[in-house]
Amino acid sequence: MYVDLGNALDAEPRLTREALERLDERVADAHDRIDRLRDEGAHGYASLNLPETVDPAAIRRAVARFDDPAAVLTVGIGGSALGAATLTEALGTDLDAYVLDNVDPTHVAALLDTLPLSDTVVHVVSRSGTTAETLSNFLVVREAMADAGVDWTERTLVTTGPSGNLRDLAARHDLPVLDVPAGSPGRFSVLSTVALPVAALAGHDIEALLDGARAEADRLTGSLFEAPAYAYGATCYALERRGAGVNAMMPYAESLESFAEWFAQLWAESLGKDAVGQTPARALGATDQHSQLQLYRAGPRDKLVTLVRPRERPDVSIPETDFDGLDYLGGGSLGDLLEAEFRATEASLAASDCPNVRIEVDRIDERGVGELLYGMEAACTLYGELAGVETFTQPAVEWSKRAARGLLGGGDVDADDAVPEKRRLVID
Amino acid sequence: MYVDLGNALDAEPRLTREALERLDERVADAHDRIDRLRDEGAHGYASLNLPETVDPAAIRRAVARFDDPAAVLTVGIGGSALGAATLTEALGTDLDAYVLDNVDPTHVAALLDTLPLSDTVVHVVSRSGTTAETLSNFLVVREAMADAGVDWTERTLVTTGPSGNLRDLAARHDLPVLDVPAGSPGRFSVLSTVALPVAALAGHDIEALLDGARAEADRLTGSLFEAPAYAYGATCYALERRGAGVNAMMPYAESLESFAEWFAQLWAESLGKDAVGQTPARALGATDQHSQLQLYRAGPRDKLVTLVRPRERPDVSIPETDFDGLDYLGGGSLGDLLEAEFRATEASLAASDCPNVRIEVDRIDERGVGELLYGMEAACTLYGELAGVETFTQPAVEWSKRAARGLLGGGDVDADDAVPEKRRLVID
Repeated sequence: MYVDLGNALDAEPRLTREALERLDERVADAHDRIDRLRDEGAHGYASLNLPETVDPAAIRRAVARFDDPAAVLTVGIGGSALGAATLTEALGTDLDAYVLDNVDPTHVAALLDTLPLSDTVVHVVSRSGTTAETLSNFLVVREAMADAGVDWTERTLVTTGPSGNLRDLAARHDLPVLDVPAGSPGRFSVLSTVALPVAALAGHDIEALLDGARAEADRLTGSLFEAPAYAYGATCYALERRGAGVNAMMPYAESLESFAEWFAQLWAESLGKDAVGQTPARALGATDQHSQLQLYRAGPRDKLVTLVRPRERPDVSIPETDFDGLDYLGGGSLGDLLEAEFRATEASLAASDCPNVRIEVDRIDERGVGELLYGMEAACTLYGELAGVETFTQPAVEWSKRAARGLLGGGDVDADDAVPEKRRLVID
Repeated sequence: MYVDLGNALDAEPRLTREALERLDERVADAHDRIDRLRDEGAHGYASLNLPETVDPAAIRRAVARFDDPAAVLTVGIGGSALGAATLTEALGTDLDAYVLDNVDPTHVAALLDTLPLSDTVVHVVSRSGTTAETLSNFLVVREAMADAGVDWTERTLVTTGPSGNLRDLAARHDLPVLDVPAGSPGRFSVLSTVALPVAALAGHDIEALLDGARAEADRLTGSLFEAPAYAYGATCYALERRGAGVNAMMPYAESLESFAEWFAQLWAESLGKDAVGQTPARALGATDQHSQLQLYRAGPRDKLVTLVRPRERPDVSIPETDFDGLDYLGGGSLGDLLEAEFRATEASLAASDCPNVRIEVDRIDERGVGELLYGMEAACTLYGELAGVETFTQPAVEWSKRAARGLLGGGDVDADDAVPEKRRLVID
């Protein structure tokens, strides 16, 4: 992974090279702390060890019983789903990869109509084994398989924690089961048993994914001027402190759309605490030049734009044309056009003093994606240290989980969690 | 469309009922101005007349020659594509609906592998007839059809302005052609020949879509306390002025994911000007409760969350279960669960003083979607009036368009538009 900070400096909000150099002393301290906590296997920090601690052979063994399926369906929510979507979308696949990460009945019904149930592997993922959305969806899918005469026990793979409903279910029906990694919250678990099984089923080189991550891990040192991941994390933090409350993640690759969503979860849930934290906005190049760019250039000066691009990609030629005024396109390629748009957008952001960072990988392949995902996790971990927040917890989402359970009659909910009468001012 | 402002008041940033009442005098003036400019058919304002001025019969005639296709592909970018994606995703379709709105060669190649070329209708949309991305993609698709022995002239529908390459092409090959509506920028043109042809091909009731929009238009009066669309637009404006720089659009319906993207374009490109404008963030309920909610509740107090839900939707039962502690789910439905999550999230935002607005439609059907889309356009128009920006232009995107053209050797580019050397500070 390469990080270019050139356009992040001396824009608005203003961050100087000198300020980054001063910050680098704090980066050194933060790195020492991160390193120590990784060694101790502390909650969350252990995620940065995943490229070493995960066993790809065990993942390959667990999926080996599924012989060349037509489709794979991940049933999970949040970090238990976004990693799989990110990998299969980025790396492409001949197999149809679906994710069920919402409990919208319209969507679930439509998906069940589409899925080749007898030829689908279902990967159900829940650390606790009690996530209401995931288990409800799994019950619905399982029943649909049974109704279609498909033996669901032959088509189901489980990833879960050491105890709970899914662990029991796997034991009862002799399902292949993988352990969620210890000390790794969902949003930091893409490089593990949570998302790698689907990549393995889709024929991807999961060892190369881990190699890419390991290469990025090996580059973490006590200076942001040496470690690309830290360069990015420290710059985001420094810009947020100066007023860049929004971080627009804008990959120039359609296949990284889910990556931007994965990043949004990583950033929002890890850093949105104690009244600080950058708001991630998802964008996509070149499409969103015709949508968000106006705002980034001419709106409030509260934004950092993160541009991501592969240095190489396959290309498609544009046929010759007699279209008036468009002869400059004919004989070129879509890749040339996309590249020109990338450079023009980057320059136009710089010209309007909107800070932007360029992140590159050599190619969007297993190794490049491994570098990128690990790099963002390390960047987020550093940002959290610098901001002094608890990066690896998510206390503010617990309230509504308990409240939803209370509304459904799920008992043992404190009186505090009862949902109060809504204040209304209805215009209809 | 119903708008409930109850949770938008007395939160943080703080907006009071009294402040809204004071603002209502300006709403009355703005409404007079909007009304007058609609009558005059002024640029942009004319969009609010579309439910009256568009001729659904002409659209039906234009698509009648395509007999029950298997797929439809919209080739466009920005507002020329998002409307079609929004309609087909919201309303569902048996026909496979694709959108090509990026020039990513990897994606284009993958799409061409998937498309049943001989049974696909291509709808190419460009007001100017010169949009580089759209024309390049069209050239590639057309060649793929020719290579596959498909007569592309039998499979192509054009929507464009009064002159330009696409108009000439249509004349030369006798293609069915529809006129883009006069005075309606792409992001305000979903209820026109830009997106309705695809809805018609997909078997949707485009008259009901227009009826829904007309019903919303008929409710625009000089008071935000009477017109739901104005209630929303005025509240967004008032909250942004008080510090809510981010507007998270969070529908509780998977089928409204593209709607959130359409909204993001509408909001960003219309309002992101003169150093003001709310940054739209896209979210999805219930999925993003496990992603963005932590930030919305506990992060900086700079957000408004807009929750959208249908009052009725089809449902799917959850089978009975012996899962430990989850018996409260069994025998219920996914709809009950989603509804409980919606109410819990709304309450949890209120409990943490995060302002939120609830927008409802009766159902996500043609009428409901027509109300919603028109309502957002009217809300945006009012916001622009109150903020004093030029809602219907997008000057800041022109620079990079010219610069990209210059990079590709497309001539007649001012020296000012040359892309300067990039400042570099590469960490690799």
